Formats: sequence, structure tokens, C-alpha cells
Amino acid sequence: MRQAYLNQLEHIVADLVAMTEAVQRAVRLSTVALLHADVAAAYEVIAGDADIDAQRERIEDKSFELLALQQPVAGDLRMLIAAVRMVADLERMGDLAVHVAKVARLRAPHAAVPPDVLPTVERMGELAGNMVGAAAGIIADRDVQAAAALERDDEEMDELRRQSFQIILGDTWSFGVEPAIDAALLGRYYERIADHAVSLGRRVVYLVTGEA
Amino acid sequence: MRQAYLNQLEHIVADLVAMTEAVQRAVRLSTVALLHADVAAAYEVIAGDADIDAQRERIEDKSFELLALQQPVAGDLRMLIAAVRMVADLERMGDLAVHVAKVARLRAPHAAVPPDVLPTVERMGELAGNMVGAAAGIIADRDVQAAAALERDDEEMDELRRQSFQIILGDTWSFGVEPAIDAALLGRYYERIADHAVSLGRRVVYLVTGEA
Repeated sequence: MRQAYLNQLEHIVADLVAMTEAVQRAVRLSTVALLHADVAAAYEVIAGDADIDAQRERIEDKSFELLALQQPVAGDLRMLIAAVRMVADLERMGDLAVHVAKVARLRAPHAAVPPDVLPTVERMGELAGNMVGAAAGIIADRDVQAAAALERDDEEMDELRRQSFQIILGDTWSFGVEPAIDAALLGRYYERIADHAVSLGRRVVYLVTGEA
Repeated sequence: MRQAYLNQLEHIVADLVAMTEAVQRAVRLSTVALLHADVAAAYEVIAGDADIDAQRERIEDKSFELLALQQPVAGDLRMLIAAVRMVADLERMGDLAVHVAKVARLRAPHAAVPPDVLPTVERMGELAGNMVGAAAGIIADRDVQAAAALERDDEEMDELRRQSFQIILGDTWSFGVEPAIDAALLGRYYERIADHAVSLGRRVVYLVTGEA
């Protein structure tokens, strides 16, 4: 009985890792859609979001079942609560990837991101994808050190966002209001993806160390 | 023992309602800060966010304690899980009010919102405040009908956001890029507050009817 229960806990962790990897693919693909005005990629992200939502539901159902049937305490209780919170972060990250994809789709066949701000947005997309990938590893290995690295990545993301505003609001910006708003909102989406990745890392740290 | 436990559950609901009311005050005050370039109001929202975070922590701690000690099942388990999720929505709404307040502070003594888009933003702020207030009532009274009304309010919010984009991107917009970006981001913040209010309502519906 106890062994079956521990297996179920392990399954939940494996499902969380798989869901994080699915979110990473969505974030990467949405960036491809954005940078290359790739409508097919955009649609794939948008259509694929239902899968991510279904993963959330599955993990939640399993967690609630274990909560109700096994009545776990201490570390196991903390782990199941953390799982329920992590899937909320992950689902939200998937939604944000959809937002990025929708900007790409709306502007296609034109590129949504003008050349002046392209390197900054490109780096934001890359960094966001990397951070979600790192979160998957952190959850799989309970890697507290890698979680600390996520906090540094998040500082770079904030710096990139400041940079993008400088460019959009600078004297040499010649692309008008609409691409400026796109860039500002895209920056916001990537920043929020990064925030959620940091939040995933912190939840693992809390699980391992008991300290928030 | 059972009575003490039921009292504790009732306390959690009362705390949730109080937290929702605190968030409503923050949303309303951030809108005042925004519409009147009122720096004192902006600071009050920003400084007050720590209180909202503390309320979240208190409600979470109580919920986890009950989960661990009372090992609730069925409806009570669902209720405690819902509480843990609701405080996450509420904390996030408080953060979004802080974002609104920060835009007001950044542009003061000037108004952040140009006159052309002011009525739309004003209505967004009013609607967001009303929706959070409605959510407090829904949680207090388990009012499923009022939760349905929140969905209609959310449609109005989406429509307001479309309107604001039409104005910002219209031929008569003469205020340049920065106020356009402010208005776009403010619209996003209010829209997210509305989304979270809808989410609170849905959680209550699920608690009452068992249907998502």
C-alpha cells in the first residue's frame, strides 16, 4: 500500500516534468512564430494549449485523489499542495505562449517585431524558453542551486524589458504606435513567463529546504 | 471537536471575504491614483500590498493546518483547496493594482491617461472595482447567480479593451507612443483583474454545484 502510494507521488512529479516540457515547447514555438511570422507555428501553439490544460487537470485530479484517500501529512502534504500550485503556474505560462503566438498570427505575413527591437525580443524569447527548460530540470532533480540561477535569469529579463522600452520610446523609433504596443505587450508576456518559472523554482526550494 | 473545526472553516471564508474587500479597496484606490495623478493614493496602494500578501499567508497557513490536522474529505477538502487557490487569485489582483498605481506614480504630476482614452480607462477601472466587490459577495453568500453576472461584466471589459485599442491606433491619436503603451498596459492590468474575479466566481460555482 505504502509503495503504491509512493509510486503515485513519483508519477505526479514525472507528470509535472512532462507538463513543464510541453510548456517549454509552446514557449519556444511561439517565439519561432513571432520571429519568423510563422502562422503554422502560431496555430500549433494555440491548438496545443488544450493539451496543456488537460495535463493540468490530470495532475490536479491525481493530487486531490491522493489528498483525499491517503491523507498525507508533512512532506507529502507539502508536495501535493506544491503540485497543485505548480500546475496553475504552468497552465498560465501556456496561456502566455498563446498570447505571443496570437500577436504573431495577427501581424502575419508581416513581422510583428520591427528590426530595432528584434534582438531584444529575440533574447527575451530565448531566455524565457531556457528558464522553462531549467524549471523542468529543477522539478525533476529537486535542484536548489539551479533554482537560484533562475533568479539571475529573471534579472536579465527585467533588464531586457527596460532596454526594449528605451528603444520603443527613443528618438530613433520610426515604426509608430502599433508595433510599439506589440513590443510592450510581448515584453510583458515574456516577463510573466519568467516570473512563473522563478515561482516554480521557489516552490521546489521550499519543498527541499522548508524555507520560502 | 467537530464544531471547532466547522468554526475554523467559517473563519477561513470570513478571511477570504475580508481579503477580497482589501483587494477591492486597492483596485479602487489605484484607479483614483491613475485618474487624478494622485501620488499619495498610489503610494498607499503600493505600501498596502504587503498587508494583502500577509492575508494570503494567514489564510494559506490556516488551510494547510486544517488539511493536515483534520484530514477533510469531499466538500470540506474541496473548500480548502478552493481557498488556497482563491488567495492566489487575490494576491495577484493586488499585484495588478500595484502595477496600475505605479503607472500613476511614474507619470505624476501629469495624468498618465490622455483625454481621448480617459472615459474608456475610467470605465475599466470602475468595472474592475465592481467585479472584485461582487466577488466578495459571491464568496460570502455562495451566490451562483451573481457569479454568472461576473461573466457578463468580463465581456464588457473585453469590449472596453477593444475600444481602447481603436482609440490608441486611430488616426486622431496625437499623444505619441508612451501614453499609448501606458494605456495598452493599463488595459491589460484591468483585464487580468477582471479575469481573476471571474475565476473566483467560478471556484464558488464549483464548490456549490460540483461542476466546473
